[in-house]
Amino acid sequence: MSETESIINDEDVDVVIAALHSDVSSFMEQWRPFFSRFHLIIVKDPDLGDDLQIPDGFNYNVYTRTDIEQVLASTPVQYINFSGYFCRYFGYLMSRKKYIISIDDDCFPAKDDKTGILIDAMDQHITNLRTPATPKFFNTLYDPYCDGADFVRGYPFSLREGVKCVLSCGLWLNLADLDAPTQALVPDKRNTRYVDAVLTVPKSSLMPMSGINVAFDREIIGPALVPGLRLAGEGKVRWETMEDIWCGLCAKVVIDHLSLGVKSGLPYVWRNESGDAVASLKKEWEGMKLMEDLVPFFQAVKLSATTPEDCVMEVAKMVKEDLGSSHESIGLAADAMVEWVSLWKAVQS
Amino acid sequence: MSETESIINDEDVDVVIAALHSDVSSFMEQWRPFFSRFHLIIVKDPDLGDDLQIPDGFNYNVYTRTDIEQVLASTPVQYINFSGYFCRYFGYLMSRKKYIISIDDDCFPAKDDKTGILIDAMDQHITNLRTPATPKFFNTLYDPYCDGADFVRGYPFSLREGVKCVLSCGLWLNLADLDAPTQALVPDKRNTRYVDAVLTVPKSSLMPMSGINVAFDREIIGPALVPGLRLAGEGKVRWETMEDIWCGLCAKVVIDHLSLGVKSGLPYVWRNESGDAVASLKKEWEGMKLMEDLVPFFQAVKLSATTPEDCVMEVAKMVKEDLGSSHESIGLAADAMVEWVSLWKAVQS
Repeated sequence: MSETESIINDEDVDVVIAALHSDVSSFMEQWRPFFSRFHLIIVKDPDLGDDLQIPDGFNYNVYTRTDIEQVLASTPVQYINFSGYFCRYFGYLMSRKKYIISIDDDCFPAKDDKTGILIDAMDQHITNLRTPATPKFFNTLYDPYCDGADFVRGYPFSLREGVKCVLSCGLWLNLADLDAPTQALVPDKRNTRYVDAVLTVPKSSLMPMSGINVAFDREIIGPALVPGLRLAGEGKVRWETMEDIWCGLCAKVVIDHLSLGVKSGLPYVWRNESGDAVASLKKEWEGMKLMEDLVPFFQAVKLSATTPEDCVMEVAKMVKEDLGSSHESIGLAADAMVEWVSLWKAVQS
Repeated sequence: MSETESIINDEDVDVVIAALHSDVSSFMEQWRPFFSRFHLIIVKDPDLGDDLQIPDGFNYNVYTRTDIEQVLASTPVQYINFSGYFCRYFGYLMSRKKYIISIDDDCFPAKDDKTGILIDAMDQHITNLRTPATPKFFNTLYDPYCDGADFVRGYPFSLREGVKCVLSCGLWLNLADLDAPTQALVPDKRNTRYVDAVLTVPKSSLMPMSGINVAFDREIIGPALVPGLRLAGEGKVRWETMEDIWCGLCAKVVIDHLSLGVKSGLPYVWRNESGDAVASLKKEWEGMKLMEDLVPFFQAVKLSATTPEDCVMEVAKMVKEDLGSSHESIGLAADAMVEWVSLWKAVQS
């Protein structure tokens, strides 16, 4: 193990599951071989009526509407709403562990392309976070810290130590994380290409982070994983949300500024059908239009703060000033970010 | 085919082979299924004594020391020397085709990991150059223009058209393109990881380009593929050269500035043994030390010119001023770049 690698024990990790479906039995059973060594935080979407059905034999805490209301009683919020996909952020808030892994409840373990063996996505996320990221110079043979990989000729030795990786973004086989129009155009399109690689997303390069299959260092970067943007017509299927994309844009500018790193690639999860792309089309347009303004905005963000909390406050201020008046939902996102930082500080203390 | 894709015909391509070995028979025979539909430019390293042995049945031009001397008689140069790996730049200069593919003569076709079929590296390079690059925003599912791939949710629609891809950097199986100390530390290390992906190297992110297996749009970016840096103790094995790394740094800053793109990934070639890493160790240190200064320098380069030729002149001027006095070989590289632009213009006109 290199000197720059961290040790991550099972007890340092919370697996956060946003339960958007009341019956998570099949989800839990399929993940059992990989979830069972970790503590789980299951957050029930406060909009769900039925009781959660969770199989025996797991080590977990469940949080429901009652728990959310209890926390918000002492620190009231006006702009944050933990319903739908946003309920997972309540899990991030409740965790006391160093690392969080978060998997959507409509995903299952994928199979390794070569061996046919089920992929331990937990283990791969931990590997991604345990080893350094290399955002300052591109390594053509992908993550040099992967087994068998290395730095190629010409890679400066002073940059080989890399920086701390604090965010690991995994991918999806079968139903990829496309937007509704793209999927609606080719309804039968499935992602079958298993790319056996992890790579660092270079410094200053922004990516559309998907919240389906991610992990992060909560202690270092937790407050920057913000629940911000909620679309007016937001629903309960992925292609109707932008919360994770927004969260990823905020997180990436903060991570770049703090000289930390983000990896993307392995692990894959298997995504099943969910939702009707054509029916979602009319809701999606708001998010797509917003991206046209958000990307240039975030590309131009320059920060000066030195903590994730202060960086988020700085971003929120810029968002409010630059985009708040032209897009109502973005103005509200900025307000939610400010609230999130207060809430984070209140809950952590 | 998207409106943004180009058509590339076989007669638009020159395959340039720098012959550092006089017997290229085995190399040519193994590549025959893929080389035979293209015109080849074979440049004999002027240091080679023996006659080249080239099998029948190819469509090619050979250039030797005599041809080089003839060209330089009318446009004399003081700093460019076409010996060793640099002889391929003479091929770039002689070509009249729109595209160039360049493969080192110690590489052979690799096998596709899944099908076991020999990879048509020519075809993959052409696909990379034919389809747009997407340097302004990172697509987590890799090159969206690959078969079966697409843009993920959150990717701004206005950026999906991409930019023209003018440089395609392929990779290596078996003996990877490591530096001598890395290979010497683990002499038996081989690259066995076949990563089935192509991706755009994001804007403003620099990479260590390897000249082993590359292709580019000569018409658009040819003059920016410069023969610049020659190390004092440079030899005839890859890990003793830095010419391609230098060339790649120059090309990438020019390409970024001109809003063009670079892809990295597929195709792989199979690299056989070559050279003794331990014996090369003492020669390599100069190059490794230089990278420590070169990377920050190139990361800070801001250009204003509008043609590749003028951009190269601008870079050369900055190199000379900023680094020319501290490193003799870099000062000479700047002089070589200025000469290269003159030579390129003279030969093209």
